[in-house]
Amino acid sequence: MKAELLEIIGDDKRVWVDFIDEKYYSDQLGRIKVKPGAVVLPLKTKEVASVVKFANENSIPIIPRGANTGLTGATIPVEGSIIIDLSALNHIEAFDEETLTVTVQPGVPLEEIQAFVETKGYFYPPDPGEKKATIGGNISTNAGGMRAVKYGVTRDYVRSLEVVLASGKIVEVGAETIKNSSGLDLKNLIIGSEGTLGIVTKAKLKVLPKPAYTMSALAPFETLEEGIDTVLEILRANVDVTAIEFLEKEAIALSEKYLGLVFPTHKGNAYLLFTFDGESMENIRAYSDKVKDICRTYGALDFINLEDEEALQRTWQIRGAIVSAVESTSEQEPIDIVVPIHRSAEFVKYTKQVSQKYDIAVQSFGHAGDGNVHLCIIRGDLEEEEWKNRLDQILEDLYKKAHELKGLPSGEHGIGQTKRPYYLKYADETQIALMRGIKAVFDPKGILNPQKVY
Amino acid sequence: MKAELLEIIGDDKRVWVDFIDEKYYSDQLGRIKVKPGAVVLPLKTKEVASVVKFANENSIPIIPRGANTGLTGATIPVEGSIIIDLSALNHIEAFDEETLTVTVQPGVPLEEIQAFVETKGYFYPPDPGEKKATIGGNISTNAGGMRAVKYGVTRDYVRSLEVVLASGKIVEVGAETIKNSSGLDLKNLIIGSEGTLGIVTKAKLKVLPKPAYTMSALAPFETLEEGIDTVLEILRANVDVTAIEFLEKEAIALSEKYLGLVFPTHKGNAYLLFTFDGESMENIRAYSDKVKDICRTYGALDFINLEDEEALQRTWQIRGAIVSAVESTSEQEPIDIVVPIHRSAEFVKYTKQVSQKYDIAVQSFGHAGDGNVHLCIIRGDLEEEEWKNRLDQILEDLYKKAHELKGLPSGEHGIGQTKRPYYLKYADETQIALMRGIKAVFDPKGILNPQKVY
Ligand SMILES: Cc1cc2nc3c(=O)[nH]c(=O)nc-3n(C[C@H](O)[C@H](O)[C@H](O)COP(=O)(O)OP(=O)(O)OC[C@H]3O[C@@H](n4cnc5c(N)ncnc54)[C@H](O)[C@@H]3O)c2cc1C
Ligand SMILES: Cc1cc2nc3c(=O)[nH]c(=O)nc-3n(C[C@H](O)[C@H](O)[C@H](O)COP(=O)(O)OP(=O)(O)OC[C@H]3O[C@@H](n4cnc5c(N)ncnc54)[C@H](O)[C@@H]3O)c2cc1C
Repeated sequence: MKAELLEIIGDDKRVWVDFIDEKYYSDQLGRIKVKPGAVVLPLKTKEVASVVKFANENSIPIIPRGANTGLTGATIPVEGSIIIDLSALNHIEAFDEETLTVTVQPGVPLEEIQAFVETKGYFYPPDPGEKKATIGGNISTNAGGMRAVKYGVTRDYVRSLEVVLASGKIVEVGAETIKNSSGLDLKNLIIGSEGTLGIVTKAKLKVLPKPAYTMSALAPFETLEEGIDTVLEILRANVDVTAIEFLEKEAIALSEKYLGLVFPTHKGNAYLLFTFDGESMENIRAYSDKVKDICRTYGALDFINLEDEEALQRTWQIRGAIVSAVESTSEQEPIDIVVPIHRSAEFVKYTKQVSQKYDIAVQSFGHAGDGNVHLCIIRGDLEEEEWKNRLDQILEDLYKKAHELKGLPSGEHGIGQTKRPYYLKYADETQIALMRGIKAVFDPKGILNPQKVY
Repeated sequence: MKAELLEIIGDDKRVWVDFIDEKYYSDQLGRIKVKPGAVVLPLKTKEVASVVKFANENSIPIIPRGANTGLTGATIPVEGSIIIDLSALNHIEAFDEETLTVTVQPGVPLEEIQAFVETKGYFYPPDPGEKKATIGGNISTNAGGMRAVKYGVTRDYVRSLEVVLASGKIVEVGAETIKNSSGLDLKNLIIGSEGTLGIVTKAKLKVLPKPAYTMSALAPFETLEEGIDTVLEILRANVDVTAIEFLEKEAIALSEKYLGLVFPTHKGNAYLLFTFDGESMENIRAYSDKVKDICRTYGALDFINLEDEEALQRTWQIRGAIVSAVESTSEQEPIDIVVPIHRSAEFVKYTKQVSQKYDIAVQSFGHAGDGNVHLCIIRGDLEEEEWKNRLDQILEDLYKKAHELKGLPSGEHGIGQTKRPYYLKYADETQIALMRGIKAVFDPKGILNPQKVY
């Protein structure tokens, strides 16, 4: 296939067949390694389309890949596959104040989009932790993030997409209009499809006017359960909160050590971290005061407004570095289970039992405002085989519990390869059959990211 | 089929075969009449499933029907079809303060859901004009409404759905969780599918805490274009506006006369009607003041805060009765074109040209906050043939213009039967092929609401 790919791309610096950088053998976790057949780095939608068309005609699997920051093995190649690395399709094409949209290529890193629109006085609300992820990856996993409580997830900010189908045809889904009740919703089908239905080559995203003020606050609790139970009361109180994250003392301690920074409080064992934003500082304070009252009523040991810029940055930096801090000490398995919001405390409590049962450290943190519990299951100094065994059992237990609580294996990371068995175990057969039917419509030969998700 | 339907339903008061009420021959506009083969009125999901299974085995078309308030002929039967009237599946099944959801059967009228959750201190934001529509109809058309500017549309409030597929199988799509990145998004595929993919037999809807205060305000302008151009400025100003409707003097006059009520102002020729809501009246006034400033800058002749409850009700009543007022004078064709927000004024201006060109009155009004322009094309005293001819030409012109402006034939009513030719004329072939492929996966024999939409 070398000759054909070279002919399509027309630049031997953007096609690799004989020598392929090892970074393409796996996702960022690097556990499973498979040598792909080729890697291409397109600079144009047309190149993507031609490569896919060629692959389809020859039944060669295609693995779309953004910044490779995914946590579910969704970019792990299969043997002989062509990886389409979309990271060089990285231009911001247009900013339109008339429709309040920004049009971007799929390889633009999230952080660039955020920074760019902010220079224009607007903001792009979705805010997943990994800012170097590409927007194409965010769209393909329906990435969530911190501000989802108030603003929703990536899905809510996609107006339209240009998509290369398995046939090589280019189609636009969604529209420039704000509302749309014209035909089946193909746009939402592509969003979150993890590269299994098509390759996103352009996106028109909705932006909002940037709030004039934002503020964070921190509430320590004796136990995580107390903290999480408070969240529901806050959501019911209509206090316009942007983010509610939960953190545990141990995870904070790891992150403090890792960064050499000090968290603003060491009271209690668990923390809720809030963000508010809005057009007046007065309003924000009024809402934050209400949240304070609720927290106090439900057992908070303190309530700290992070009005000082330095303390604010420091706190979020510590929150942001938890995973890296954990990983600096040991291999870990990242979990993204989501449960109905009122089950969060029960689920987190269960993770402690599991941790004890298998004698493996489990750090939990995450998006308390939407029941999305992130776990790091920590290998520590276990031997390979023992780790694999225990991890298997832990995962069995956790996904089973999640299912019992009417939860799902993924709130925002996607299913990819590594969560697939657990997803399929509990997913409804009729649903999966519909998904596979849809897959066959979009991709009759099954070349797009095969053996992933459903 | 009489015997089989009677056996499934087991109650001859809920099965009609020989005698069928004429109201089932058409949609509410009643222009095209077709006698269906049978009508059933199920009381249980299982009955729906059994009827659909029977119909599928015998390749009999099924027409799902809610309150029949749709404006696109989507409930017009085909010959020999079975109409499943879902209006008796009308129970509110559960209200859950833990997950902030209400679970309803598909036949519950929107107004009942709104009233019910408000007694609990919550509210269901989607607010289309016709409150007697069923929630199943709202979901199947992705209904929009007044509050979409701030709160979004029906799609944004559906957590999960129980759906009867063409096979008679019952499947649940979506989840009880707030976020979900687990597999393809089947839920959004069902929403807005106008009964072509499955029958919604239950819905879990998200509710929000009810805002403590709401206020409306009215700004008259010399011309509609001035008014609409102001909207974009308002959207950019981050003033948390709930609704922005536009109205024209003539339409108001019709409605005033029809209701025997007086509109709060008669200055100018066009009006913007705003709603604000929030937790403090102070905030609302602050936002409304900002909007006032913007309106004044862009030529508003006045700005009237409708703080008086009576004036508020009266104003919205007049807004709400426009269509009925028009219809009390003449037959009319309802249009629901949506264009990119900055094209609204251009599109409305074009409708005036068309009105002159064909010498037919066209009333425009609608959702200025999202570019969704409703038109009533008014027959007046034209003879049948002449009306049909001119209407055809007008529609050709309007949908062509909408397409040129990157608009769509429907922002919230759906495509149904009457807009289908215009939709198909401009829709992308690849998109339509995908939709038809998906349809074949869900409904291989094509029994569900055939010859509609795509
Ligand atoms: C420290 C850390 C924190 C994180 N925090 C969050 C968080 O808060 N919220 C969250 O949601 N995620 C989070 N993630 C996960 C990850 O960043 C997201 O899943 C992100 O969306 C992946 O983007 P990517 O560009 O790296 O995609 P990749 O990892 O390269 O790919 C992800 C999937 O998308 C597909 N794909 C990529 N680009 C395209 C395209 N253009 N067209 C079609 N398919 C494509 C791939 O085939 C694959 O299935 C975090 C990850 C890390 C390492
Ligand atoms: C005066 C007036 C004002 C209106 N204002 C608005 C407005 O502001 N915004 C707006 O969006 N619409 C508006 N409408 C249009 C209409 O009310 C909506 O389209 C509504 O959603 C239709 O609901 P229904 O129960 O009457 O459905 P029907 O008219 O009975 O059916 C509509 C479609 O949904 C399908 N359907 C119905 N129930 C189900 C089910 N349970 N499962 C599967 N398919 C089903 C039908 O097959 C059909 O395709 C207005 C209508 C009128 C008459």
